[in-house]
Amino acid sequence: MMSIKAATAQVEADYAHPSSAVPSYEHELRLELTRDRIPRSDPLHSVLEHALNVPGKLTRPTLLIESALAVGGAAGDVLPAAVGTEFGHVASLIHDDIIDHDDERRGQPAVHARYGVDTAIVAGDALIFQLFRCLAECRKAGVADDRIVTALEILADCGKDLCRGQQLETEIGRRRLRSLHVYLEMIELKTAALFSGACRSGAVLAGGREEWVRALGTYGSGLGIAFQIWDDLLPYVGDPAATGKPAASDLRNRRLTLPILLAYRNGGLSAAEVLDAALDGEITDDITLEAAVRAVEDVLRTTGAIDASADMARGYAATAKQVLEVLPPSASRDRLAGLADRAVDRVS
Amino acid sequence: MMSIKAATAQVEADYAHPSSAVPSYEHELRLELTRDRIPRSDPLHSVLEHALNVPGKLTRPTLLIESALAVGGAAGDVLPAAVGTEFGHVASLIHDDIIDHDDERRGQPAVHARYGVDTAIVAGDALIFQLFRCLAECRKAGVADDRIVTALEILADCGKDLCRGQQLETEIGRRRLRSLHVYLEMIELKTAALFSGACRSGAVLAGGREEWVRALGTYGSGLGIAFQIWDDLLPYVGDPAATGKPAASDLRNRRLTLPILLAYRNGGLSAAEVLDAALDGEITDDITLEAAVRAVEDVLRTTGAIDASADMARGYAATAKQVLEVLPPSASRDRLAGLADRAVDRVS
Repeated sequence: MMSIKAATAQVEADYAHPSSAVPSYEHELRLELTRDRIPRSDPLHSVLEHALNVPGKLTRPTLLIESALAVGGAAGDVLPAAVGTEFGHVASLIHDDIIDHDDERRGQPAVHARYGVDTAIVAGDALIFQLFRCLAECRKAGVADDRIVTALEILADCGKDLCRGQQLETEIGRRRLRSLHVYLEMIELKTAALFSGACRSGAVLAGGREEWVRALGTYGSGLGIAFQIWDDLLPYVGDPAATGKPAASDLRNRRLTLPILLAYRNGGLSAAEVLDAALDGEITDDITLEAAVRAVEDVLRTTGAIDASADMARGYAATAKQVLEVLPPSASRDRLAGLADRAVDRVS
Repeated sequence: MMSIKAATAQVEADYAHPSSAVPSYEHELRLELTRDRIPRSDPLHSVLEHALNVPGKLTRPTLLIESALAVGGAAGDVLPAAVGTEFGHVASLIHDDIIDHDDERRGQPAVHARYGVDTAIVAGDALIFQLFRCLAECRKAGVADDRIVTALEILADCGKDLCRGQQLETEIGRRRLRSLHVYLEMIELKTAALFSGACRSGAVLAGGREEWVRALGTYGSGLGIAFQIWDDLLPYVGDPAATGKPAASDLRNRRLTLPILLAYRNGGLSAAEVLDAALDGEITDDITLEAAVRAVEDVLRTTGAIDASADMARGYAATAKQVLEVLPPSASRDRLAGLADRAVDRVS
């Protein structure tokens, strides 16, 4: 196993060579993610192992580390906090999957599907606590306490925002709120807050200047919105095998995603009729569900809602990228810009 | 509304007058608990308001504040962290009530009974994040950052222990584990850890000497075990109107509480037969449930399991009290000792 120090040295080497495509902290990050943090004999151990077994894109930890590097910090110092943001994210996925009755996650049984809802609730809670335990570990990595407390403020606020966003999403569905404004507020809370928080806390832990912290926060927020809008599009533009984001789940949960909101707004009465039928109609079996999915998809294309959503996402990504200009040029700044490019126009 | 400063001044006045029975920070604590921490317009607001509407005994915040006072600190400085521990506790109650299918809490509908399981999951999560946000607020109250980071370590670990304890409890029930050792490990994780953590973090935030922090941690742990054992007894010795802890819930959840474990150990085959029937038998309706409750209660009395459990609880409480001798004499030390006395031989 490579030590954190060695990983840091490598990252610093990368830093000097902007051409390096895969940052070398990634290996260390994956090791840290699966390191035993509770005794192997503990009943929760295997549950958390399952939940963390197939890590996703590691977007949040990557944002935290690259933000630290972009303001002149070292990856090894902030690695524990970076891992923590992934724990917080996975916690929200575990609880989200219960709420959405999504029985699969990244091609595996969701935690609640495998271990039951009760265990999934507890596992999510444990990962939230683990997020904060990790943040405290930055002290051992040499980060000053005042920076850790500021990051604590940021990450605790983001977590609460995330919960508010989840609840707002439920409300939107329950009350069939078709407001674009409310939708944007929801994804800002649910997704953009933690993206922004990861960036800001990385920069703060690395001792970055206030204007850089602010810029990275704005970047993260825009990136998060772009990312979430594109996630909403994946059922229609993505690779079904890779995304695991079937349109069926959105429909089953009667989720008012951006393309659907835009189709309502731009599609006139005939579009509304189809959408109402699909979203409010009784879905009794898979065949009805499939038919509803196809009908919705058709309306989204003909009304131009998919293209309009994609354009909005691209707009947020472009603005996010622009904000990075405030930062001094570096390989990390380039990689953050690259993340903004890849947040949109992806198929998984 | 009394300011924190004023509250602190009053506490310090109390501190000089050991005779004062009701500490004056309690009013401030209750105000802080119900202060708006998310916008009133937010869908989560009313949910959290409901959850925090009828505060309980405020044991954990009281332990945190009294521990701070006992090592020479001021109540106002640590008040935010104290409120935080109550948020963490209420979060665990909300999630516990989902898991145990307990539809009432403190005489009110449980959060999931009132707002649905999905919302209850999110509300619990939000309160965990709020715990850590509160801890960070100690900075504004004038607490040094190094103390906050140490308290962060402590409270994050306690939270994880709490989750491990909840999961261990599920395992005990599922695998019918009748080990006294495993039971004690479970309540240590589930209850004693946060009691101990509240005491230690209070002392740390107030800058207490290491030996005092350690002593208060040991006190909190013993108090927590005594408290939890007595909680297990409440269905049999308590005031049903006041406790809201019906034996029926324990039985419905097939919970192997200490008196039941002792009855198995000491009651021979005939006791085991009755307990097996009650715990493993099919409970189809309230009448069957009532009959099972009465049968179990009878066995617990005749085998002396209730008395033996009570004695164990008293033993832990007495030891906890003794440990306080390490601390310098003060009104707070006396109040902590009083809490140990009142953890046992209570009816609610």
